[in-house]
Amino acid sequence: MRTIISATGSYIPPVIVPNAAFLNHDFRGPDGAALNKTNAEIVAQFEAITSIQERRYAPNDKVTSDIAYEAALEAFTSSGIDRESLDAIICAHNFGDVRAGTRQPDMVPALAARVKAKLQIRNPSTVAYDLVFGCPGWIQGVITAESMIRAGNAKRVMIIGADTLSRIADPHDRDSMIYADGAAATIVEGAETEGGILAHAARSDTLDHSGMLFMGPSYNEEVFLEALFLKMEGRKLYKYALQTVALAMRQCLETAKIPLSAVSKILLHQANGKMDEAICDALYTQESAQVPDGVMPLTISWLGNSSVATVPTLYDLIVKGRLPGHELRTGDIVLFASVGAGMHINAFVYRMP
Amino acid sequence: MRTIISATGSYIPPVIVPNAAFLNHDFRGPDGAALNKTNAEIVAQFEAITSIQERRYAPNDKVTSDIAYEAALEAFTSSGIDRESLDAIICAHNFGDVRAGTRQPDMVPALAARVKAKLQIRNPSTVAYDLVFGCPGWIQGVITAESMIRAGNAKRVMIIGADTLSRIADPHDRDSMIYADGAAATIVEGAETEGGILAHAARSDTLDHSGMLFMGPSYNEEVFLEALFLKMEGRKLYKYALQTVALAMRQCLETAKIPLSAVSKILLHQANGKMDEAICDALYTQESAQVPDGVMPLTISWLGNSSVATVPTLYDLIVKGRLPGHELRTGDIVLFASVGAGMHINAFVYRMP
Repeated sequence: MRTIISATGSYIPPVIVPNAAFLNHDFRGPDGAALNKTNAEIVAQFEAITSIQERRYAPNDKVTSDIAYEAALEAFTSSGIDRESLDAIICAHNFGDVRAGTRQPDMVPALAARVKAKLQIRNPSTVAYDLVFGCPGWIQGVITAESMIRAGNAKRVMIIGADTLSRIADPHDRDSMIYADGAAATIVEGAETEGGILAHAARSDTLDHSGMLFMGPSYNEEVFLEALFLKMEGRKLYKYALQTVALAMRQCLETAKIPLSAVSKILLHQANGKMDEAICDALYTQESAQVPDGVMPLTISWLGNSSVATVPTLYDLIVKGRLPGHELRTGDIVLFASVGAGMHINAFVYRMP
Repeated sequence: MRTIISATGSYIPPVIVPNAAFLNHDFRGPDGAALNKTNAEIVAQFEAITSIQERRYAPNDKVTSDIAYEAALEAFTSSGIDRESLDAIICAHNFGDVRAGTRQPDMVPALAARVKAKLQIRNPSTVAYDLVFGCPGWIQGVITAESMIRAGNAKRVMIIGADTLSRIADPHDRDSMIYADGAAATIVEGAETEGGILAHAARSDTLDHSGMLFMGPSYNEEVFLEALFLKMEGRKLYKYALQTVALAMRQCLETAKIPLSAVSKILLHQANGKMDEAICDALYTQESAQVPDGVMPLTISWLGNSSVATVPTLYDLIVKGRLPGHELRTGDIVLFASVGAGMHINAFVYRMP
């Protein structure tokens, strides 16, 4: 028996924030001092490095569990799957619900429980819990569900990835321009098929790398006393990702006994456009191959980095025909992969059923 | 193949807080008004209902991941298990790391990643993630690990339960007297044995019950502007638990084909002494049986309610011979069960290997 993705949904937040919105920000360095560049230079350099032109924020009246619910609802509506038929809802996130204008995460009850309540699911056997694993949380939820299904402990599981990074972004830190809000949901289930998940892999490099993404004070501490914001050791992170993500992807393909040349699409966490391209280059260079045109769809230019939501959103947009130039057909091989705070990396190889 | 518990450790925080420490608190009701009782009356009534005489708090210089690490270290030290041999570390908690004097949870990176880094584990295949499921989080981690092991995705998994409820307790709310800090860790692994986990069960009652434990403002909002504290609809929660926990326990025993009379110990989440006794009474009354002497060990009188840590701490204290009057021998049947924010309930039946 294999685990297949039987439904998808995503929530694209309606608030569009272009790079120009940051031109009046008071950007500072980790030492609190103003940067030696004009904001126009900072924004131009940011766009060149990350490929991000705009990002999406959730409306002020919604929190993470609300947008997770919207994505979940879309998965049910577009698939017709009975919402009472789920054995579990796993919600991957990293900050809980953070109300607009505040910075205190709230996950009592767990976001999955909130989503289940909003969906009006009555079935008590739909176990609803959250999983925290940095940006790779949604893929880890899929890997966990695959275990539950193969062990006979579940037949059908919803995995949601949802976060509102805009709520914990330090407006005085230029890295805040990367962060976006988003949510996507998928339903996976066991099926007798040649398709589905062929192999998966995960790693946690914590000994030397656990401090690369962390919560720290604002670069303007006078304004935000004691509040914690998402902080990034961008250069170290870039180097780590470049060295390790392609390796993990290749190992996962080897486990699945699928040659790189058979891969139709690579759905990689949208962290930074140039970094994603460099990882993809590294993967193909290892096999002295050229990167095929269109193998790695990118949404980062208009959606930014929405953490756990990027990969399932990408997949949803493609299978729903909403990402021009990209499609997936039965038999196509898709390599899902992510990297994020931990540092963690994971991947799975999927044959379209 | 069965899943057995092969190692345990717990961290009993050193800061002892007796009920008398609350005699000078400015307790208020949800409306912000002072209560119509003296503090001496409030504290006496609290002790009569909950059986709590004192509770433990973590020292100010430690956060949840620090005490989780202490418990994990104890599990390795007392068992001699090689720390590089783990396939996963699952850390169940509900509030992330909250530094003393602040109220902003932090889980970037995930607490399991922090524990792994502190343990100096180098093995990248030890996947470290967090699980959020209210107080039943540790049992849910065990259930998840059982799936991973039975599916062949893991051989040996550490599950930690750790929380510092003292950091998010509202000093103006008498319910804050329930909350305690604590951490415990267990290692589970597959084994060819008659013992181990015989059956497990979990349920999420979110439709009518998701608001019984939640984060809300202080009862003295002037003091703690915008901060969120753990809040409880105590009476509704008591009624729900009484009606549903015994039912879930009985269903789990039925799945395991174990009669109630064969149960040696019931390790129930330490939420409230009187509630736990009422649940136990309900379980035996359903079968017209008497509650056997000593079947349900309690630590709540001196440890309070430390959320995810209560059940694994109980088990660790018993197997280490640190809970006078209680012991477990090969072949004994242990029923683990928990209930908490969600509302969630779970249980597993375990035969001592």
